[in-house]
Amino acid sequence: MKFSSFLPDTPGWEMIGEEAHYAGAHLSVVTHHVRTPSRKGGRRWTVVHRKAAVVVAPLTAEGNLVLIRQERVPIRATIWEVPAGQIDDEGKCEVADMEAVALSEMREETGYELAIGGGLVPLGDFFTSPGFTDEHSYFFLAQPVQPGAAGHAHQESEAILDCQAFTPRQLREMIAANEIRDANTLSMCAKLVAGGFLSLS
Amino acid sequence: MKFSSFLPDTPGWEMIGEEAHYAGAHLSVVTHHVRTPSRKGGRRWTVVHRKAAVVVAPLTAEGNLVLIRQERVPIRATIWEVPAGQIDDEGKCEVADMEAVALSEMREETGYELAIGGGLVPLGDFFTSPGFTDEHSYFFLAQPVQPGAAGHAHQESEAILDCQAFTPRQLREMIAANEIRDANTLSMCAKLVAGGFLSLS
Repeated sequence: MKFSSFLPDTPGWEMIGEEAHYAGAHLSVVTHHVRTPSRKGGRRWTVVHRKAAVVVAPLTAEGNLVLIRQERVPIRATIWEVPAGQIDDEGKCEVADMEAVALSEMREETGYELAIGGGLVPLGDFFTSPGFTDEHSYFFLAQPVQPGAAGHAHQESEAILDCQAFTPRQLREMIAANEIRDANTLSMCAKLVAGGFLSLS
Repeated sequence: MKFSSFLPDTPGWEMIGEEAHYAGAHLSVVTHHVRTPSRKGGRRWTVVHRKAAVVVAPLTAEGNLVLIRQERVPIRATIWEVPAGQIDDEGKCEVADMEAVALSEMREETGYELAIGGGLVPLGDFFTSPGFTDEHSYFFLAQPVQPGAAGHAHQESEAILDCQAFTPRQLREMIAANEIRDANTLSMCAKLVAGGFLSLS
């Protein structure tokens, strides 16, 4: 797994050396020795590499957001969250490829698809925890969406137990009550609010 | 590093076995073999363990949010974000201990401190990337804050290059323009909006 092509060594950053610790199917761990804009002498930092991902906000014509309820092994909990999925080869990915991943993840995980006249709006990207990982995800708003004829198609590797559309008022209450509590969904909500696509007030 | 005490094996979850892959100063990697509520036969999942953290929103009397500009090695970028810091021994941590960490991280990273009559408001917690890590952070609103007499006290391990208070309008523009793009800051903004502490519309 290479350091993401999306994150080039921009001016002031330079890799001096690296030490690999672990490489698995889904993540790898490497200590970087790197010159930074403020540390010309270099510093060492242990980084977890992960594939990039897309995160989708399926919004119905009524302005409701479709969430899935998913079992998450690392946190031993089942939580409500927006659909998301990893991108296989980000370096070769054009915007159209990412949009295709966004639509197929939405369809597989929620059973919803774009209604006639619907489309995707790219809303930028974000880093899930830049203190230790290069993982980053691309936000897409999908609107309007409607339940598809084929229903969902959950993969064996996933454990999605439920799917439901929530009103903005329900979302606000779930955020305030700590029922929505993952970075993808909270950050997506901030993006939707700042972009004028959702009101949580 | 043990699995967080904050995440007990609740009914339906049971660890069957585990295989350690890497243990460093700041993270460890372990494959869990675990029964889940929907998979009684168990499934294997590779998990990155990290310490828990606090994330602070320092809000001035004028309603502006104080952000720091920090170099982040894993993403080769310098970004605007809310102050945050890890908790050393979460299992033994009372709320008062977490509040103390929140206030000291805010003071060290921004130089701001609570004004007379100010206080902390706990806003719940969140998971940064529950698909692969148990990392979670506790949100605190600190208000009102003001620049402290002592200034900031950046630690050697950090690379904080700037600090500034932003108006809600500036925040909205920075989110929409993809200038604010880390999970801590975006998720905190969603929490503040849902709690009625900030307007981004």
